[in-house]
Amino acid sequence: RLPAKPAMVKFQPAESYWASVNAEIEASLRQAIPVKEPLVVFEPMHHLVSAAPPTTAPSLCIAACEVVGGRRDQAMAAASALLLMHAATYTHENLPLTDRPKIDHVFGPHIELQTGDGMIAFGFELLAKSIQPGQNNSDRILRVIIEISRAMGSEGVIDGQYCKILGTQSVGSDSCRVDWMKQAIEKIEGRLHACGAACGAMLGGGSEEEIEILRRYGFYVGMIQGMLELDKRKEKGSMEEVEELRNLALKELEVFESRKIEAISCFINV
Amino acid sequence: RLPAKPAMVKFQPAESYWASVNAEIEASLRQAIPVKEPLVVFEPMHHLVSAAPPTTAPSLCIAACEVVGGRRDQAMAAASALLLMHAATYTHENLPLTDRPKIDHVFGPHIELQTGDGMIAFGFELLAKSIQPGQNNSDRILRVIIEISRAMGSEGVIDGQYCKILGTQSVGSDSCRVDWMKQAIEKIEGRLHACGAACGAMLGGGSEEEIEILRRYGFYVGMIQGMLELDKRKEKGSMEEVEELRNLALKELEVFESRKIEAISCFINV
Repeated sequence: RLPAKPAMVKFQPAESYWASVNAEIEASLRQAIPVKEPLVVFEPMHHLVSAAPPTTAPSLCIAACEVVGGRRDQAMAAASALLLMHAATYTHENLPLTDRPKIDHVFGPHIELQTGDGMIAFGFELLAKSIQPGQNNSDRILRVIIEISRAMGSEGVIDGQYCKILGTQSVGSDSCRVDWMKQAIEKIEGRLHACGAACGAMLGGGSEEEIEILRRYGFYVGMIQGMLELDKRKEKGSMEEVEELRNLALKELEVFESRKIEAISCFINV
Repeated sequence: RLPAKPAMVKFQPAESYWASVNAEIEASLRQAIPVKEPLVVFEPMHHLVSAAPPTTAPSLCIAACEVVGGRRDQAMAAASALLLMHAATYTHENLPLTDRPKIDHVFGPHIELQTGDGMIAFGFELLAKSIQPGQNNSDRILRVIIEISRAMGSEGVIDGQYCKILGTQSVGSDSCRVDWMKQAIEKIEGRLHACGAACGAMLGGGSEEEIEILRRYGFYVGMIQGMLELDKRKEKGSMEEVEELRNLALKELEVFESRKIEAISCFINV
C-alpha cells in the first residue's frame, strides 16, 4: 500500500489572496444591494461603495474564518457589512461640512448623507439575514453584530474621528499632532481590523483563545496599514515601529500550523 | 368556595399610557448610553436623543408587545433602538447641508454627523445585546434587527426623505407637492410605526397573524400622526382622511379582547 500523498500546500503571492478575496466580497455585495426604483435611492449606494479607498478589514475577516477551519461563505455577510461600514464612514467623513480637502462628489451632499445612513443600516440587515438553516448560528451572528456596532460606534471609529479632529486642530508641537494621529489609527484602522479578524474567527467556529489571538493580530495589521499611510503622507510614521508591529503580528500566529497561515500572514505586507 | 374575583380592568386616560411608557423608555436609554471619557464623544448622544421631537413609535412597540401578552421588558431594547434611530434621523436631517429652516445646534456639524452614525450603530448593539438567558430569543431579535434596518434604510426612511426633497423642490401644483409629502409620511412615520408595532408583537410572542395585524395598525397610527402634522403646518392634511384612518386602525384591533386594547388604542388619538 502506498503512503497517502502529502496534502498539497498552495503557495500564493502575498497580494493575490487579498485581491481575489476582495473581488469576491465586492461581487457578493453588489449582488446584495438591490437595484430597483427609485434608482436615485439605490444607485448611490453602489457608487459610494466603490468610491471608497480599498480596505483590508473585510478580507482579513474571511482569512480569519478560514484559518480557524471555517468556510469562506460563513464570513461573507460580515465581510460585506464591514465593507459597507467602511464606505459609509468614508462618505460621511468627506461631506462638505468640514474644512478637509475636497473630494469629487457625484451626488448632492444630502443624498450622500442619507445613503451613508442607509449603508450602515443595510450592513446590519445583511448580517441579521445571514442565519444559515440548520447551522444554529444565531448567537454567533448576534455576537458579530455587537462587535461591529462597537467598532463603528463611540468606542471605535467615532472616537477615532474625534482624535483626528483634535490632531488637525492641534496647535502644539509636531509630536503632539502625531500622537493624536496614532490614537486615531488605533481606534479606526486598528479597531476595525481587530473587529474583522475576531468576527471571522467567531463565524468560522474558532475557540475563544483563537478569537482573541486573531483580534490582536488584526489590530497589528490595522496599525501597520495606518502607520504606512502616515508615512506616505510624510507624517513621520516611523518604519521601525512598523517593523516592530510586523514582528508582534507574526508572533500571534505562531499557535497555528505554519501551512495554514500562508494566506492570513500576507496582510502584514499589503 | 367563593368565585374568583373578576380581573381588575385598569382604565387610563389616553395620553397617560403613552407618556408614562415613553418616560420609561427614555430612562432606560439614558442608563444604557455610557457616560465616560471622552465626554465630547458621549455627551452629544444624550443631548441629541432628548433634542429630537417626540415620537410614539417606541411606545407603540411596547404596547404591541403587551397586547399580545408579552412583558414590557421584552420590547424595551427594541423601543430604545427605535428612539435612537428616530433621533439619528432628526439629527442628520437638520445638519446644515440643505436649505431647510435652521435649528439650534449645540455641537458642531461634524460632531452631530458622527454622533448620528454612532446612535444608529448603538441602536443595533442594544438590540443584539438583549438576548435573555434561557429565553431562546435570538431568532426573534435577529428578525427585529432586519425589520428595523429595513425601516431605517432605503426601503423606508431614506426613501421617504427623498420624497420630501422632491416635494420641497416640486414646482408643480399644490396637490402634486402634497402627494409627495403623503408618500414621505407613508415611508417615514407610517413605516416606522408599522415596524415598531410589528417588532413589539414579535418580541412579545405574538402569532404571525397578530404581527401582521399590529403592523397594519401601526401603519395607520403613523399615517394619522403625519397627516395631523401636515394639517398643523397648514399643508392641507385633510381631517376626513384622518377620520378614515382612525376607523381602519380600530377595525384592525377587533380581533383582540376589548379590555386588552385599552392602552394600544389610545395611539390613534395622541
